[in-house]
Amino acid sequence: MFGPWIIAPISALISILVGAYFYYYVKRQDSGTKRMQEIAAAIEEGANAFLRREYTVLAIFVAVVAVLLCIFLPEPIWQTQKPIENVELTLAYIFGSFCSALAGFLGLRIATKANTKAASAAREGLNKAFPIGFRGGAVMGLAVVGAGLLGISIVYAVTGNPEIVLGYSFGASSLALFAKAGGGIYTKTADISADLVGKVELGIPEDDPRNPAVIADNVGDNVGDVAGMGADLFDSYVASIVAVMILGEAIDIIAGSAGLYTQIPLVFAGLGIIAAVLGALLVRVSKKGSPGKALNMGTYITCTIFAVLTFLASYYLNYDLRIWGATVVGLIAGVIIGTTSDYFTSEDKPPVKKTAEASLTGTATNIITGFSYGLHSVFPPLIGIGIASAVAYFLCAPLGDKYALYGIGMAAVGMLSIVGLIVSNDAYGPIVDNSRGIAMQGGLSEEVIRVTDEMDAAGNTAKAITKGFAIGAAGLTVIALLAAFQERAQSAGVNPSFNLMNPLVLLGALIGIAMPAVFSAMVMLGVGRNAFRMIEEIRRQFNEIPGLREGKEGVKPDYARCVDIATVGAIKELMPASIVAIGVTLIVGFVGGIEALGGYLAGTIFSGLLFALLMANAGGLWDNAKKIIESGEHGGKGSEAHKAAVVGDTVGDPFKDTAGPSLNTMITVMSLVASLFAVLIANYNLLKLLGL
Amino acid sequence: MFGPWIIAPISALISILVGAYFYYYVKRQDSGTKRMQEIAAAIEEGANAFLRREYTVLAIFVAVVAVLLCIFLPEPIWQTQKPIENVELTLAYIFGSFCSALAGFLGLRIATKANTKAASAAREGLNKAFPIGFRGGAVMGLAVVGAGLLGISIVYAVTGNPEIVLGYSFGASSLALFAKAGGGIYTKTADISADLVGKVELGIPEDDPRNPAVIADNVGDNVGDVAGMGADLFDSYVASIVAVMILGEAIDIIAGSAGLYTQIPLVFAGLGIIAAVLGALLVRVSKKGSPGKALNMGTYITCTIFAVLTFLASYYLNYDLRIWGATVVGLIAGVIIGTTSDYFTSEDKPPVKKTAEASLTGTATNIITGFSYGLHSVFPPLIGIGIASAVAYFLCAPLGDKYALYGIGMAAVGMLSIVGLIVSNDAYGPIVDNSRGIAMQGGLSEEVIRVTDEMDAAGNTAKAITKGFAIGAAGLTVIALLAAFQERAQSAGVNPSFNLMNPLVLLGALIGIAMPAVFSAMVMLGVGRNAFRMIEEIRRQFNEIPGLREGKEGVKPDYARCVDIATVGAIKELMPASIVAIGVTLIVGFVGGIEALGGYLAGTIFSGLLFALLMANAGGLWDNAKKIIESGEHGGKGSEAHKAAVVGDTVGDPFKDTAGPSLNTMITVMSLVASLFAVLIANYNLLKLLGL
Repeated sequence: MFGPWIIAPISALISILVGAYFYYYVKRQDSGTKRMQEIAAAIEEGANAFLRREYTVLAIFVAVVAVLLCIFLPEPIWQTQKPIENVELTLAYIFGSFCSALAGFLGLRIATKANTKAASAAREGLNKAFPIGFRGGAVMGLAVVGAGLLGISIVYAVTGNPEIVLGYSFGASSLALFAKAGGGIYTKTADISADLVGKVELGIPEDDPRNPAVIADNVGDNVGDVAGMGADLFDSYVASIVAVMILGEAIDIIAGSAGLYTQIPLVFAGLGIIAAVLGALLVRVSKKGSPGKALNMGTYITCTIFAVLTFLASYYLNYDLRIWGATVVGLIAGVIIGTTSDYFTSEDKPPVKKTAEASLTGTATNIITGFSYGLHSVFPPLIGIGIASAVAYFLCAPLGDKYALYGIGMAAVGMLSIVGLIVSNDAYGPIVDNSRGIAMQGGLSEEVIRVTDEMDAAGNTAKAITKGFAIGAAGLTVIALLAAFQERAQSAGVNPSFNLMNPLVLLGALIGIAMPAVFSAMVMLGVGRNAFRMIEEIRRQFNEIPGLREGKEGVKPDYARCVDIATVGAIKELMPASIVAIGVTLIVGFVGGIEALGGYLAGTIFSGLLFALLMANAGGLWDNAKKIIESGEHGGKGSEAHKAAVVGDTVGDPFKDTAGPSLNTMITVMSLVASLFAVLIANYNLLKLLGL
Repeated sequence: MFGPWIIAPISALISILVGAYFYYYVKRQDSGTKRMQEIAAAIEEGANAFLRREYTVLAIFVAVVAVLLCIFLPEPIWQTQKPIENVELTLAYIFGSFCSALAGFLGLRIATKANTKAASAAREGLNKAFPIGFRGGAVMGLAVVGAGLLGISIVYAVTGNPEIVLGYSFGASSLALFAKAGGGIYTKTADISADLVGKVELGIPEDDPRNPAVIADNVGDNVGDVAGMGADLFDSYVASIVAVMILGEAIDIIAGSAGLYTQIPLVFAGLGIIAAVLGALLVRVSKKGSPGKALNMGTYITCTIFAVLTFLASYYLNYDLRIWGATVVGLIAGVIIGTTSDYFTSEDKPPVKKTAEASLTGTATNIITGFSYGLHSVFPPLIGIGIASAVAYFLCAPLGDKYALYGIGMAAVGMLSIVGLIVSNDAYGPIVDNSRGIAMQGGLSEEVIRVTDEMDAAGNTAKAITKGFAIGAAGLTVIALLAAFQERAQSAGVNPSFNLMNPLVLLGALIGIAMPAVFSAMVMLGVGRNAFRMIEEIRRQFNEIPGLREGKEGVKPDYARCVDIATVGAIKELMPASIVAIGVTLIVGFVGGIEALGGYLAGTIFSGLLFALLMANAGGLWDNAKKIIESGEHGGKGSEAHKAAVVGDTVGDPFKDTAGPSLNTMITVMSLVASLFAVLIANYNLLKLLGL
């Protein structure tokens, strides 16, 4: 059963061990003053309340889906020859959602501890504080890749069947959809309602502890950026590996190569983890050094180690070097895509500068300018994804039929190989952002705040790069999933061609391109409705809790109730959008058949990438345009330009934190649903029944 | 040479004659008081200044392109066997741009006369005023279809070659790109700068005659909505007919049917004109009647007449009824798509109402809500286009190979057959809008203003429906053009498959979906730059013309100079966007070959439709949400909610008047460029040269 791919579970375990080491490293650091500890404890309490509530609802959801899977997939239980596969698939699904939830839980848990510890260490200098922030983030990064790859390895070792691993991936993705879109609705709900009642109605400052929503608001960043982004990349990571395993299995069957091609992605992913672990251990900064450079250096080191390790593995294990080439192409494309999204959202580049300047002529010009640059920003990454797939394809095409699409899949694996480090960098962001808040609220010295500021600025850049990277990776992954879907349909005896001049493909594509728009609209409108409910609760507490408004000693608002309302509401608003997304996918498939569904998936990929990039970048750009003005340019804080920029930033918030980042996950979930149901749809669909 | 298709030039001539009759009907009406005539004269002067300037620049552009066409197409002049074809194509191109310009010129000319005459007649009641408004608009409608079809007929009669008719269509489309996108930049430039200097800086009222930009602003509506929409539908109309002629020619060659299938679209288009002429003659309203109902009734009558006439023609001329069926499917889809866009932009439906309500909680919520409903609104029309193509395809597929795509083309022809009436309804809008303005500025009675109000309200609804219709029609047309492109490539001996799993198709599609975003961004940012230049000029005039600011008797600003600056600037800003659109199309083709170009076209269609619908509907929705508040709800004029809604409306302006409506034309131009160059690209492209 085991071959070279044993490297996968081994390095996954190493990753988990190093993650555990970082966990205890962070945990044993000093937590700072009493006041700092209090603030951190409140955030931790809120995050736990969120997770408790979310996981309770999720458990029900997972249970319902598990029953449905067990009945219908891979084949309906009443007609299958192998009912054991239904059970395996169901268990894999539950296991996948469990692993994804576990990674998110661990990451969020340490993130809410590392913030105060990094703030405390900042009193001793950057070189003491930075490793706490970074290693706190790295716990999440290493947990994601460790749990992801270990889970895949276990399912594959037990069943030997990539189709069952698909169930594991689906479990991870459905969890991710909740974590990402639900977290996105949650964080904006809390943000908007805390501001509206607190700042606008009562005139109390931001982050005032009297505001019942303040903890929900603080928790929001952690929930969206730590747990959400972690789940998002967990899902792309697992899905890319599974897609290539399915494509590889088809080659193995033809070439009689006994699992060789099925296992290459596992071997490479294992080496990617080793590279990321080494990279994470090597990230450090001197007393006067730049944290931004340290993070970038970590990324470049990891990429280099990965390229060298996979080259050596290919050489010694006799893998064709073309496959290695495709992998490296994906890796390079990922870095380039990340860098271009930095251009569009960076404070010292024209797009943000001109948007800040446009605020001088009013709110509308700020919004139009920012939106326009957001539209521009989709160009480089889309071309990057397109070129990476084409190069990977043509590199591997000479190996024979089916190898070309396998090459595209390996490019996705290559891009995602360094995901351990990418998530580490990303989770670092909200940790040091919180550190800065704690340092300020805890009344630490100017010098300490300067250190936390510097760490925070590096975090923002890292975040912009990660968002671009996550979208690029999702793009390549879903293209690989589309190929896997086609492969699955072929295994059912259909030989579909996704030719755009086929009207079913065209119809599917036209429906598909509408879906990300509809999904975005549903979650953004959901934020508004959810905020409305929460506002009612905040007003109620201020009215009913005696002494709260006046800030009487010992009177505390019911933070947990606000967290609870935001959480329940977020899940409630997310449900219709998710059901529409999955439901329309199944309807298109069971009515129009495989080709309509293929066109549909392609359509969702196209428009999903378009909107994800537009929303992420426009949102980031508006945010930084506001920051430029707050730093004193164009009239500074309180000027008309500032008011305009604040509106732009508020418009951008649900773009970049709610709708935009959910789209990756949405298209991955749709693609996985399609692949899971491919065989069933190929056999039973309306057009086939009608004989068309 | 002539067969039944002689109906095409004959009905085109009838259309032109009836249009001339309407022209003189409107012209001989009373022009109202002296003050009214003055206002109308100023608008007319401004419109003429715009046209003069635009046509001068366009003449140069057309000349340059004509030379290039003559050298390179259909085959490079130094290696072609038939140099006469290069000359024919060039002349057809010039002729196409001339006809399109002529139709726009006539329509704009009568629109700027009909406004004051309708206002004057409103003193005698609705039943006197309405026909002037409607017939003023119908001049444009009938000129568009008359000139369009007559031009096609002449080119086809002379050359007998649909490929040359493609040149005619390209001429019409490149003109349309200027009229639509240039007009869109123009109108918003004038609007923004007139407001910023007049209302904001100097505090003088809107439409104050002292403001040098006021005429430019008044002209804007006519330029964008009359000339622009006319050119847009002219271009879709011609392109759909040409696309089907090319597809029909391929069938004729196989079936030996001597031009039969090439000519069906001409016959049907001719019958469509007769239906539209009858419909236009039958549109009237009683003294107490509703103008909105009258317009709709005209549309339904035209559709019915068209369906009956084409059925009879099919019966007597022995056309297969399946082709008739495909045509009718397109017709029905057009009406449905128009109606759904009415839902999303209508003042008494939830989307607009909720957006108005959201203004209560601030600007950002107004924008997010409006944008979200805009995202929702793309769903019905995209599905409508998809289903119409699929039904048309499957209806005609049993006739044999190539007939199925021909069916999709005929659906586009069916949808566009009633375009004469649609343009009439649309051009009616700005005419009666101006009537209302003239009635108010001319100090007419309350009762008269109420009549003009009623006519205006019907115009707004008609406009919403037309926009949806225009986008739907463009959608089906470009799908037909994609098929025509494939056909042209096949005629060059390539047999391309636009399979999405082909990485070249995929790369092309990824570049293609980015193009409408980039194009929109370029024209929207262009509005900002252009407005900046115009603001300088307005300030200069106020500073340098003595007595202007104080409104001294006899002192007039230099209106023409503002018109000139807006015009030149609009063309200057449009040029880079157009060059990028056409340039990238050629680069993708000459580098990646036919399959990359096919994917690219599909990508531009997908994302072009998505953004065109989103922008048109979100823009209309914000506009009407503002109107609801201005009518007194949610605090009425001057309230905080009103301020928020005004910003939403201003953001929506470049969406709905600049970027959105240009996208149709942009994707049509790209598709035509691709078809024109198809043979050349099939023979010479980088990948082929490299042997890939």
